[in-house]
Amino acid sequence: MNRICKLFDIKYPIIQGGMVWCSGWKLASAVSNNGGLGLLGAGSMHPETLEEHILKTQAATSKPFGVNVPLMYPEIDKIMEIIVRNKVPVVFTSAGSPKKWTGWLKERGVKVAHVVSSSAFAEKCEAAGVDAIVAEGFEAGGHNGREETTTLTLIPSVRKAIRLPLIAAGGIGSGASMLATMVLGAEAVQIGSLFAVAEESSAHPDFKKLVTQLGEGDTKLTLKKLAPSRLVKNAFFNLVEEAENQGKSARELFKIAGKGRSKQGIFEGDIENGALGIGQVSAQITRIIPVSEIMQNLISEYNSAKETIKEFPEF
Amino acid sequence: MNRICKLFDIKYPIIQGGMVWCSGWKLASAVSNNGGLGLLGAGSMHPETLEEHILKTQAATSKPFGVNVPLMYPEIDKIMEIIVRNKVPVVFTSAGSPKKWTGWLKERGVKVAHVVSSSAFAEKCEAAGVDAIVAEGFEAGGHNGREETTTLTLIPSVRKAIRLPLIAAGGIGSGASMLATMVLGAEAVQIGSLFAVAEESSAHPDFKKLVTQLGEGDTKLTLKKLAPSRLVKNAFFNLVEEAENQGKSARELFKIAGKGRSKQGIFEGDIENGALGIGQVSAQITRIIPVSEIMQNLISEYNSAKETIKEFPEF
Repeated sequence: MNRICKLFDIKYPIIQGGMVWCSGWKLASAVSNNGGLGLLGAGSMHPETLEEHILKTQAATSKPFGVNVPLMYPEIDKIMEIIVRNKVPVVFTSAGSPKKWTGWLKERGVKVAHVVSSSAFAEKCEAAGVDAIVAEGFEAGGHNGREETTTLTLIPSVRKAIRLPLIAAGGIGSGASMLATMVLGAEAVQIGSLFAVAEESSAHPDFKKLVTQLGEGDTKLTLKKLAPSRLVKNAFFNLVEEAENQGKSARELFKIAGKGRSKQGIFEGDIENGALGIGQVSAQITRIIPVSEIMQNLISEYNSAKETIKEFPEF
Repeated sequence: MNRICKLFDIKYPIIQGGMVWCSGWKLASAVSNNGGLGLLGAGSMHPETLEEHILKTQAATSKPFGVNVPLMYPEIDKIMEIIVRNKVPVVFTSAGSPKKWTGWLKERGVKVAHVVSSSAFAEKCEAAGVDAIVAEGFEAGGHNGREETTTLTLIPSVRKAIRLPLIAAGGIGSGASMLATMVLGAEAVQIGSLFAVAEESSAHPDFKKLVTQLGEGDTKLTLKKLAPSRLVKNAFFNLVEEAENQGKSARELFKIAGKGRSKQGIFEGDIENGALGIGQVSAQITRIIPVSEIMQNLISEYNSAKETIKEFPEF
């Protein structure tokens, strides 16, 4: 049996990324109800909001689900206490050291996966005792690694470096690319962009519509002097990119970027002045559809891609 | 039968990239003799040097081979005349419009493939009548597309946009990643980095040794204001990267970058002050081995990756 399906007790090795301003209870419960693992995105929630979403998810599904927690989160103690008190079975951590919370969570019966963008960090996670690793490539939306390693080159390296169950993320927009990352050594996929524009996503309709219209080259990694982030090339992007090209310092860039830009763009629908994190795979997304259809598509594409391999050359 | 194998009359759907200062007659003939398609890299050769390498390749192999021609090449008329006069069966063009030379070459019996980094450009190539398309992702070494689209996201998009035989390039360092790109819709692969450090490559031993020591994040796309290029992070890289970060103009950068830096680094072995183009996949390369071994590894890894798919989950 697939190790990720066994670990999280899910039918399909498909995890929905816990994205800010997209991944509320509607999205997470829909993914879990359709055989994947839904994740709430704690990064954009106050502790009390997260608790409300946990309770609503539990009311909407009897299947396992999880919470994505960026470890830089200011009220992280509260967040973790809420997760454990409400018996959430799975936590995905990111953006920080896995050392601090992994043991604490595991002692309390929570399964822990950590998101990395390099083999070196994957090894640290293995040493810290996490249950699974998400390795995310340069093509992913939002926060991104400084090494800029792509999924195609990252997965084989991480696979070689660690023994733990491995989840590929970044650039996965179909069942065929899901299968491709499994050929590289992944055992499951974490998918963001496709679910960010699902009907059940909390994102603003104007953001979703924009994503369906994006083509190749319409997103770019920027804010490299602060925290590298893949964003849609809109007015906000131009503002910060221009500042970077002029050689502004990290402090100046921080001031120019301002606060609350992701909320402004993704949740409030200001698609010109907001920070719109989305992956390169947005170029392949043309429709806003419900989670059930996304999951069915992924599985049928995976199956037919698997069939076509039978016709590949034999040597 | 595989369309690329048929088109080029080769045993394996593996093409060796025509790389500057690496791809001379020794490398190209070794790849062709081992069942792939070897390419001479005209980009670093004077016309008379190219002719010498064509004649030596013909003496060393009876198998098909080709020449990679960057279309910005100053003496391109001479190069093309030499190729046709010497009955070279295949030309891979890059870095320019496919319109000008495709028809002329095809009328003279030459098979033409063109290297692109976007679907839009692939469509232009199809309209121009090329026989095959190479789609190369962001992880590739040397010159690179401005869209920064990775191989994992590029191949499915190009596959959807065109009907021609499709060759994947960028990030392919093993038979498993070869199979992965074929799952995405490619019918063959073009491999650069692995062959750049083959025993038969013309590159300097110090360059090859350095590549075997590189890890993740040791290459980066730079010179974005001129022609984006993936280079090893050495003293030369720091020089141009620093200049870019300070907001220098394209003209100033051109002056700072200087001329002959690839030759200085790759061919002459000045690994600190030369421009060292190599792909992200260099992180997976640990040994300098002959072409015969590289080809055997690729085929046996491809076959075993194909076997493992049989154990993948059924849905």
